Amino acid sequence: MTKVKVYVTLRESVVDPQGIAAQEALQTMGFNEVESVRIGKLIELELAGTAAEIETRVTEMCDKLLVNKVIEQYSFEIGEVAGK
Amino acid sequence: MTKVKVYVTLRESVVDPQGIAAQEALQTMGFNEVESVRIGKLIELELAGTAAEIETRVTEMCDKLLVNKVIEQYSFEIGEVAGK
Repeated sequence: MTKVKVYVTLRESVVDPQGIAAQEALQTMGFNEVESVRIGKLIELELAGTAAEIETRVTEMCDKLLVNKVIEQYSFEIGEVAGK
Repeated sequence: MTKVKVYVTLRESVVDPQGIAAQEALQTMGFNEVESVRIGKLIELELAGTAAEIETRVTEMCDKLLVNKVIEQYSFEIGEVAGK
């Protein structure tokens, strides 16, 4: 079983209301040094396969289901093989 | 301005309905090799300060606002200094 971390972020040109809300809350709390907050997703997968298979399959999963490519972009890291 | 990436994940013991839904959808689409899907947050901050200040302040932001420590855990990476 291999662990894969998929990082999904909004494209630069897309407004992030959740990030803006968090930034405003941080400012209110005195964290005035914060210039920007953007909130994306971290998707952790565990799956079987060789590294090459996983690379192809995870790309397919992102393109077909996990990522909305109109507004989001992604990258992923194939991690260590967990025991079993 | 320094970029910081905060990785927020649900604690192991917490059920992740969004992850389960994604896993079921992947199975339906033929991605049967996927054993587990967990969905967390990736928060990207841009802020001013020295590395030591940033470490302290980001820990405070996570503890006070960004992370619900009852059900979530976090780690963060202090990245490169973006040009100003």
